[in-house]
Amino acid sequence: MLIVQKFGGTSVKDAERLRNVARIVTDVYKGGNDVVVVVSAQGDTTDDLIAKAAEINEKPSRREMDMLLASGEQISASLLAMCIQKLGIPAISLTGWQAGFLTSSAHTSARIRRVTPDRIKKELDQKKIVIVCGFQGLSRYDDITTLGRGGSDTSAVAIAAAMHADLCQIFTDVEGVYTADPRKVKNAAKLKTISYDEMLELATLGAQVLNNRSVEMAKKYNIELEVLSSLTRAPGTIVKEANKMEKMLVSGVAKDTNVARVSVVGVPDNPGLAFKMFSKLSAKNINVDIILQSIGRDGTKDISFTVAKDNAKEAAAVMEDYASAIGAKSVLVDEKVAKISIVGAGMESHAGVATKMFEALYDAQINIRMIATSEIKISVLIDEKDADAAVSAIHSKFFDKDN
Amino acid sequence: MLIVQKFGGTSVKDAERLRNVARIVTDVYKGGNDVVVVVSAQGDTTDDLIAKAAEINEKPSRREMDMLLASGEQISASLLAMCIQKLGIPAISLTGWQAGFLTSSAHTSARIRRVTPDRIKKELDQKKIVIVCGFQGLSRYDDITTLGRGGSDTSAVAIAAAMHADLCQIFTDVEGVYTADPRKVKNAAKLKTISYDEMLELATLGAQVLNNRSVEMAKKYNIELEVLSSLTRAPGTIVKEANKMEKMLVSGVAKDTNVARVSVVGVPDNPGLAFKMFSKLSAKNINVDIILQSIGRDGTKDISFTVAKDNAKEAAAVMEDYASAIGAKSVLVDEKVAKISIVGAGMESHAGVATKMFEALYDAQINIRMIATSEIKISVLIDEKDADAAVSAIHSKFFDKDN
Repeated sequence: MLIVQKFGGTSVKDAERLRNVARIVTDVYKGGNDVVVVVSAQGDTTDDLIAKAAEINEKPSRREMDMLLASGEQISASLLAMCIQKLGIPAISLTGWQAGFLTSSAHTSARIRRVTPDRIKKELDQKKIVIVCGFQGLSRYDDITTLGRGGSDTSAVAIAAAMHADLCQIFTDVEGVYTADPRKVKNAAKLKTISYDEMLELATLGAQVLNNRSVEMAKKYNIELEVLSSLTRAPGTIVKEANKMEKMLVSGVAKDTNVARVSVVGVPDNPGLAFKMFSKLSAKNINVDIILQSIGRDGTKDISFTVAKDNAKEAAAVMEDYASAIGAKSVLVDEKVAKISIVGAGMESHAGVATKMFEALYDAQINIRMIATSEIKISVLIDEKDADAAVSAIHSKFFDKDN
Repeated sequence: MLIVQKFGGTSVKDAERLRNVARIVTDVYKGGNDVVVVVSAQGDTTDDLIAKAAEINEKPSRREMDMLLASGEQISASLLAMCIQKLGIPAISLTGWQAGFLTSSAHTSARIRRVTPDRIKKELDQKKIVIVCGFQGLSRYDDITTLGRGGSDTSAVAIAAAMHADLCQIFTDVEGVYTADPRKVKNAAKLKTISYDEMLELATLGAQVLNNRSVEMAKKYNIELEVLSSLTRAPGTIVKEANKMEKMLVSGVAKDTNVARVSVVGVPDNPGLAFKMFSKLSAKNINVDIILQSIGRDGTKDISFTVAKDNAKEAAAVMEDYASAIGAKSVLVDEKVAKISIVGAGMESHAGVATKMFEALYDAQINIRMIATSEIKISVLIDEKDADAAVSAIHSKFFDKDN
């Protein structure tokens, strides 16, 4: 078997944790498998480097940021190679460009264009464990690029796809994907399996277990992912195609507090205004999540949308300009909101899931400010202060045995 | 003019020092020059990385050490680029391989095979200041290599040679090359110029101002070097061809305490024994510095040589084995010695320089244990405790005006 294993920054943060990873990796190797390991930078390295840059230049060039940040994985990868060699197993570390990662030139958030794993194959043929620097690649101008936060997951899946790996294991701090945050919700249960689509919704919703791009890529190339802990070695959660498993009604409850609501009130009911509104936001690189438009009244309508908290002020400013230009009444911003979502591939064929969610919130006396639904997801916007209570109430409604 | 400037680890150790370097570099750029900057890793970075590796594997693979250590310059180079950009001047950092450094595969002490500065030229053409990671390159197997300690000096000279630079400035902690260590010897004077050969002897002798390989390369390609301080900006010492300047009788006094003497006493007077003795040492990679053979007596002779203190015990062990095999009498080791040398291109044509040196030592009641001379150098081995006094006495003899 060819197995790709990815270890995040916490899993390789010091010598002790590196030794732990070396044992996991070599055990799999000794089982007769080819092993490619993808690593992130150690612990807080990336944040420390960002702080160093900020001390020097508050707006550093993205090209130079990538040059700087890529050093982090070079350190963790070479240290892990030394650690594995210490156990008597041959190992070699490869930078992103040595491993054949060709990316776009969008520095600090480059997209992988192609992985040419010739060097990886050559080293595997020589019975080495190959350690690849995650998160990084090379542009066609021979410049070092990085894939943005969470990019190491994507690196791992991209290698698994390019090499037709049998399994891609993503080692993290948690033992898998849970029905809710296990630190916050008692009775939160680990899922044995989850579909790509459900995982995508959960990732987007702030479950923070797996990077979204990596799940998209895994879905596209049908790579079976396993999310598991580098400390407990217990079986984790398998992420795979939905038709391979029984559909769960609801697979998880997620909370996202990095959200703000912007409302433009009293927008004249003319065609094209909404399009122009959102094109102004995308021109500023502001991503919009939920969009709701009220039914018209008095020839005007209200358009509300959510953005990341960081973008709230800028989005509001853009809207203020636009609102006065088109004669809208006012712009309201609320940063003290949270988005609570339930995800489940099964809900599309089951009526009453939304009702059950709303009932849980009503029982807990939590006010719903906005609702958005998709085929496998229902999200509500509520006051930020109610977020944890809402997750507990909904989780209890769907997962506690006595319900 | 095309000027190559090299800054060592202390010169770029933190944000403040980086800003200082950025000012030096941009001032030269604003004078209408093309500037290529070569940097070492920041401050103690390299030592810190070596310590990290040692914690994991006491004998790490050299290939992985290079992967690890090369990250250090990647950090300092990108930070310096950001620093220069902050001053409004375009800049770009390049790794060793991006800058076109092809080296041998001797990891941790690779030799530069060729520098292909196409990328550097392209960026200079775009009016950028180009910052190159010193100390590193790429082997023909596409592996990252390092040039060993002091390798950044060599990187700078290699770029200057490949690009036919007009000047190569080596910025250090000191203001130039002195007639003796200015921290130890009062009246030590900064030299305006020194020849390559004198500089080579001084570097070998532990003056530690310039890396020896870089001076050899500068001599070979006739690159004019300037050694100067990144803090004071005062004119430094120019290192160039001897025929371009007046020969100084004695250009400096140097001390090397990293030296030990090994003597093999009573070696039978047969041909080939000395050759075999030193081939056994070179087989163990032990470098021998001074070699002295006594005139034969009773059909035997004594052979003494000096090695670095680190190698003393191993050299003695090798000699013990060899001595008993050939019937030599005994092996003596003395680690408490120091080598004091005077260097000067002028001494070859002046009698009496040696006499004057020995007189200075006699006046200071310092015993000479061994003497070795070359055309431009005289070295004596003395007790380590007398080293500083010997340097002062000799320096005073040659340089004080009242002598």
